[in-house]
Amino acid sequence: MRTLHMDEKYLLGIDVGGTSVKIGLFTESGQQKEKWSIATNKDNNGEHVLEDIARSILTKWNEHGLSAADVKGAGIGVPGFVDVKKGMIQFAVNIGWVDYPVASILSDFLQIPVVLDNDANLAAAGEYWQGAGNDAADVLLLTLGTGVGGGVIVNGDILHGVSDMAGEIGHVTVVPRNGAPCNCGKTGCLETVSSATGMVRMAEAEAVKHPDSMLYIKKQQTPLTAQILFECAAACDETAAAVVDQSMHYLGMAAGNAANVLNPQRIVIGGGVSAAGEQLLTPLRSHYAVHALPRVADHTSFATAELGNDAGIIGAAWLAKHKAASGGL
Amino acid sequence: MRTLHMDEKYLLGIDVGGTSVKIGLFTESGQQKEKWSIATNKDNNGEHVLEDIARSILTKWNEHGLSAADVKGAGIGVPGFVDVKKGMIQFAVNIGWVDYPVASILSDFLQIPVVLDNDANLAAAGEYWQGAGNDAADVLLLTLGTGVGGGVIVNGDILHGVSDMAGEIGHVTVVPRNGAPCNCGKTGCLETVSSATGMVRMAEAEAVKHPDSMLYIKKQQTPLTAQILFECAAACDETAAAVVDQSMHYLGMAAGNAANVLNPQRIVIGGGVSAAGEQLLTPLRSHYAVHALPRVADHTSFATAELGNDAGIIGAAWLAKHKAASGGL
Repeated sequence: MRTLHMDEKYLLGIDVGGTSVKIGLFTESGQQKEKWSIATNKDNNGEHVLEDIARSILTKWNEHGLSAADVKGAGIGVPGFVDVKKGMIQFAVNIGWVDYPVASILSDFLQIPVVLDNDANLAAAGEYWQGAGNDAADVLLLTLGTGVGGGVIVNGDILHGVSDMAGEIGHVTVVPRNGAPCNCGKTGCLETVSSATGMVRMAEAEAVKHPDSMLYIKKQQTPLTAQILFECAAACDETAAAVVDQSMHYLGMAAGNAANVLNPQRIVIGGGVSAAGEQLLTPLRSHYAVHALPRVADHTSFATAELGNDAGIIGAAWLAKHKAASGGL
Repeated sequence: MRTLHMDEKYLLGIDVGGTSVKIGLFTESGQQKEKWSIATNKDNNGEHVLEDIARSILTKWNEHGLSAADVKGAGIGVPGFVDVKKGMIQFAVNIGWVDYPVASILSDFLQIPVVLDNDANLAAAGEYWQGAGNDAADVLLLTLGTGVGGGVIVNGDILHGVSDMAGEIGHVTVVPRNGAPCNCGKTGCLETVSSATGMVRMAEAEAVKHPDSMLYIKKQQTPLTAQILFECAAACDETAAAVVDQSMHYLGMAAGNAANVLNPQRIVIGGGVSAAGEQLLTPLRSHYAVHALPRVADHTSFATAELGNDAGIIGAAWLAKHKAASGGL
């Protein structure tokens, strides 16, 4: 295990999810030495989660003859509202934490510096550092899954804003009139039309209007998914193709509008829907170019995410590398 | 003149416009010692402008017994496309400069470090430093004039993006279908509906539809302006009020969408239209809250710009203070 350069330390990257916690041990240069996961125990509003994480890490350290002195720090990503400066979770609905001082509790257990951020920001940092970011200092990550997550890298650092809410591009309004209701309480958010859920909602509505479509036939056989939608579009079903194009129109407009403000070099599409690859990126690039200014669009390249489920722990390790104050506990 | 603290130097702030160049001399703490302006000589694609600026500055230095050694550096703002890292203007249509190394030419004349940025970014930096920014580290400035300019301060620094195009919120799409053509070549940009020009265009169209309106009567007497539009709205003309509200709907949506990505603490409205004050800010806040997420909107305050035409030279002085490398010419 002790294959580090002199003075190099290890980094811990932790990604807390509603069903499991992923943990990775990395060198400071970002090489992954080991990764594992443990179940998320949500009993009593998740009061055991951090202790479980700490015990699992201490066991690994023991196995490898490591101690706190060998580790620079840990980054930890949590889905929810964070106060980055205080290392507090304000609200993590999937875990049960409310106003919970995650960083200090875990730091007390492990006796190393711990830095907290939200999971979408850390996925962006992970792709920026080791994935599809491709050395760009300005990256916008859009994660298309059940919802639409976003993370923004500006000048090589995570953009947070005044209340750590930056990057919520899933909730920009793209359907100003008669938009579908969003989980956030607004209507017409990008999430309602470009998440997997939103695409399926649109696909179901259009299928019913076009009973001659392949999409309609599929719908009679099985619940529609984004994957089925893209398969039907690939098979030249016009109804499915129109839904994909409409969804990419909204995504391209939201990305283009955000890019006119951020001027990113790289836009990375992650989440389950990104499996569609060029079938998604080709119309997205085309709609993007309608809305981004030419001097903006000319400098943007698109890619699908490369790190899959590991983006979170890699981004968390990046956080430990860059934000864990060596001196301070 | 020599009222500086020991070791404190002067800063020069220069704001180049199509008709005049404003110049200010400031202390490092930002106190304005003197400001003046010279005409912009656009002959031969503006080849004399920098020499004129330098001569004017050297004359002032002579008057006050100052030399290059007393000045930390100069910031210079130009309306146009910039390459900030190279200190080059790529294209400044109002001056005539194309691929013009502004910073190095002026630095050679004055023998002090010179830093270049575009005028909208420096107006944002000026308001951030000494105006309506109110100590917020994350500020969005929207300048409503002939066009809609934008500048973004993130974490106390100007946001540039990969090709120095960040902050172009005037060109986000807010009317996706059948939008009016914009000067940028797109259609439906914020600038087409929330600039003074855009408001007047909408006001003229609505006046004709409502010949019983005060707006229509005014239009028979004189060319409409944004000021007349706000006056009619203040006098309870329903047609005028509806145009103002529609324009603020678009501005609130664009600002709210940008805020979901940037999470700014302060949104500052500048330009001629900002003279409308609360008549503009009240509907703007209300539309903003529809589109910004609650956790975003709750942390944003709005204000009109405070520095007027001096924002550019003050922002340029801020640039000199923070970006002029003391050592390097």
